[in-house]
Amino acid sequence: MAEDQQPGFDPVAGGRVRHRDEAEVEFNRIVSFSDGVFAIAITLLVLGLAVPEDSSNIAHELLDNRDDLIAYAISFAVLGRYWLAHHRFFSALERFDGRLMGLNLVYLAFIALVPFSSEVLGDYSRETGAIVVYAINMILVSGTFHAQLVYSYRKGLVRPEARAFERRYAGPANLLVVGVFLISIPVAFASPLAATLLWLAIFFVGRWLSDRLARTRS
Amino acid sequence: MAEDQQPGFDPVAGGRVRHRDEAEVEFNRIVSFSDGVFAIAITLLVLGLAVPEDSSNIAHELLDNRDDLIAYAISFAVLGRYWLAHHRFFSALERFDGRLMGLNLVYLAFIALVPFSSEVLGDYSRETGAIVVYAINMILVSGTFHAQLVYSYRKGLVRPEARAFERRYAGPANLLVVGVFLISIPVAFASPLAATLLWLAIFFVGRWLSDRLARTRS
Amino acid sequence: MAEDQQPGFDPVAGGRVRHRDEAEVEFNRIVSFSDGVFAIAITLLVLGLAVPEDSSNIAHELLDNRDDLIAYAISFAVLGRYWLAHHRFFSALERFDGRLMGLNLVYLAFIALVPFSSEVLGDYSRETGAIVVYAINMILVSGTFHAQLVYSYRKGLVRPEARAFERRYAGPANLLVVGVFLISIPVAFASPLAATLLWLAIFFVGRWLSDRLARTRS
Amino acid sequence: MAEDQQPGFDPVAGGRVRHRDEAEVEFNRIVSFSDGVFAIAITLLVLGLAVPEDSSNIAHELLDNRDDLIAYAISFAVLGRYWLAHHRFFSALERFDGRLMGLNLVYLAFIALVPFSSEVLGDYSRETGAIVVYAINMILVSGTFHAQLVYSYRKGLVRPEARAFERRYAGPANLLVVGVFLISIPVAFASPLAATLLWLAIFFVGRWLSDRLARTRS
Repeated sequence: MAEDQQPGFDPVAGGRVRHRDEAEVEFNRIVSFSDGVFAIAITLLVLGLAVPEDSSNIAHELLDNRDDLIAYAISFAVLGRYWLAHHRFFSALERFDGRLMGLNLVYLAFIALVPFSSEVLGDYSRETGAIVVYAINMILVSGTFHAQLVYSYRKGLVRPEARAFERRYAGPANLLVVGVFLISIPVAFASPLAATLLWLAIFFVGRWLSDRLARTRS
Repeated sequence: MAEDQQPGFDPVAGGRVRHRDEAEVEFNRIVSFSDGVFAIAITLLVLGLAVPEDSSNIAHELLDNRDDLIAYAISFAVLGRYWLAHHRFFSALERFDGRLMGLNLVYLAFIALVPFSSEVLGDYSRETGAIVVYAINMILVSGTFHAQLVYSYRKGLVRPEARAFERRYAGPANLLVVGVFLISIPVAFASPLAATLLWLAIFFVGRWLSDRLARTRS
Repeated sequence: MAEDQQPGFDPVAGGRVRHRDEAEVEFNRIVSFSDGVFAIAITLLVLGLAVPEDSSNIAHELLDNRDDLIAYAISFAVLGRYWLAHHRFFSALERFDGRLMGLNLVYLAFIALVPFSSEVLGDYSRETGAIVVYAINMILVSGTFHAQLVYSYRKGLVRPEARAFERRYAGPANLLVVGVFLISIPVAFASPLAATLLWLAIFFVGRWLSDRLARTRS
Repeated sequence: MAEDQQPGFDPVAGGRVRHRDEAEVEFNRIVSFSDGVFAIAITLLVLGLAVPEDSSNIAHELLDNRDDLIAYAISFAVLGRYWLAHHRFFSALERFDGRLMGLNLVYLAFIALVPFSSEVLGDYSRETGAIVVYAINMILVSGTFHAQLVYSYRKGLVRPEARAFERRYAGPANLLVVGVFLISIPVAFASPLAATLLWLAIFFVGRWLSDRLARTRS
């Protein structure tokens, strides 16, 4: 264990668990990389918006493409929420290891897919197929986020003072998101619109959970 | 309040107001994320420029597309200005909470839309519709920025020494921008060119306000 | 040499070797820049995915384009791995000079090419040409990474405590990657699928090497 | 001057000159923003590469598009060089003000244009028009960089120990780049290829200047 005291060099791939303060630069670099992927993915959403092709009636064409704007708004809100959750989770981490970093990369791969799913959703928002693609992407994002939560609890990587909060709040909130998106898939076969409205419920339930938690804690 | 002393863990979604020094990493991460969105949006503006499709007369085709370059210049200047204002506002913040972070995300959603509005403007700069789209985008950006200013004043999140400056300068300057873009919408129905020229006035008025302020303070 | 003691100013182009602590801001800026290129390249991979063009059967069209998703997954995994290796290498660096920075830029030029090669691979995954293009890109990435490793060992830029690890693990692992991609080129002329499967072997061999190393060290 | 002592709040738009240590967070944020624009612009170059459209002969189509790869290589090298120069210049800055930040934004607007000029160059590398577009872009980049150098010398914003180096090396090297690109414009009317070869000379002259300087200093 003596070599663990060597400051500054730490092969992430080596599978050793390290304290975030022991390897602050490394930890910050991983957080920055994740933030970078989030910031780029959220800004690439704009590429899914179709620029009108005919000058005769721009306003009309934009109104026809309003589903593009709705998909943009949904995806921006969803990615923003995921970023806040990721942000909170990483601030609750006390230690990390190579496997958690691997899980984080898989998670980021699904985050970086959102601009694609969002463009599909914007172009075919009334088609069951597009709703299903979007829902699957979100389930994969939330699922790999959950895998990170579970793994870091099992390995004891979370700060003691944050454990109760993460276990009682973040875990269930995340499973709820998975559940809503799962349910929305069969719903989409009956009505794509109903599935989209179901997604909106997440935001209100999220706020309600958040408010209830704030009351419980005070 | 005892749990406020726990260093390092702070659930942003929890609604608690925190001092920026108490949660420096969190605060910096939010600032970095915002800067990332600004940097990406400003660099994606270039994707709105149309590459000539016919080699026989490149210079001629580029001149025909000069409105693309003008839209690029306007949008770069506008995003640069907004970034400086956001930059200044965040340096004046002493504390922040989850609601302010939420407002900031909505603000960033409108910032990230600018490459789209800018491409529409570049492609149809003589059409009323394109001017209106661009003006609405700017009003939404300035409006959500103003919401952040007002909210943080009301909640006392701004450093005492910066309050007078922000109240006397940043707030009015921002409302002025909203006003000019609002007025440009009816103007665009009469003359798209006149509306564009009206926007240019913001830069000169901004400088004049800035100079006048500098004189007042010295 | 007296001017080497002047803190803070250090012309990278000047060819002088500097300690990372002596020029911490500079060093961090280079690391951030590299991370930025990685984060952008990995997020741009999504632009290689083709959005369905016909609403009649989205699911069918997406299934037809499943090679796009496979290329996305491969490239995300590959760029993620390279990033971890680059990350580890830079954390093992003790000093750096202008020539290493130049090599790093060439390396980043090949990293930034991956979204292109990946799109070619996704569009033509059964064509020998696409496999060869992808393999060449990877050989250039690994080759310029190896050049950085070799150069920094020769110039003694690596921390003493990290030297054994880098020499025994990182160097051979990287050459192995080069080897597998080299072999995959003639294989691709016989069977593009076989070449792709060969690439997968890198991940398993990499893990096996990593596990074996962990056992050796403990 | 008393208000200059107020730590932390500093309205960039206010036109006051500030020491980089006095406003470290502000200064770093500007540097990060510039680095972000560079990293994004350099990575967006890849979007200028044309993916083959016909699977029958990918290798052949890629060879036909080899000018795309040459333009990519030139632009990556050029942006890398500009980044190193910008990097060095900002590490030599001791103080900064709003006007310098404004100049830096204009400079970044021309940096962010490079992916466009590079795509034009890659598509029409044998056309005079494309060469001229590229050369004008580079002249604008170098020109606004020079404006920053001159302004910061005149206002005494550069660290004393860096002044001689910047004045004797960075300034002339930058003017040389402007000169070569200026000369390449008339040359492009005679021969686009000759103009491109002329650009290559910059790299060799740059190295020679750098080597000569290293000898002079030792």
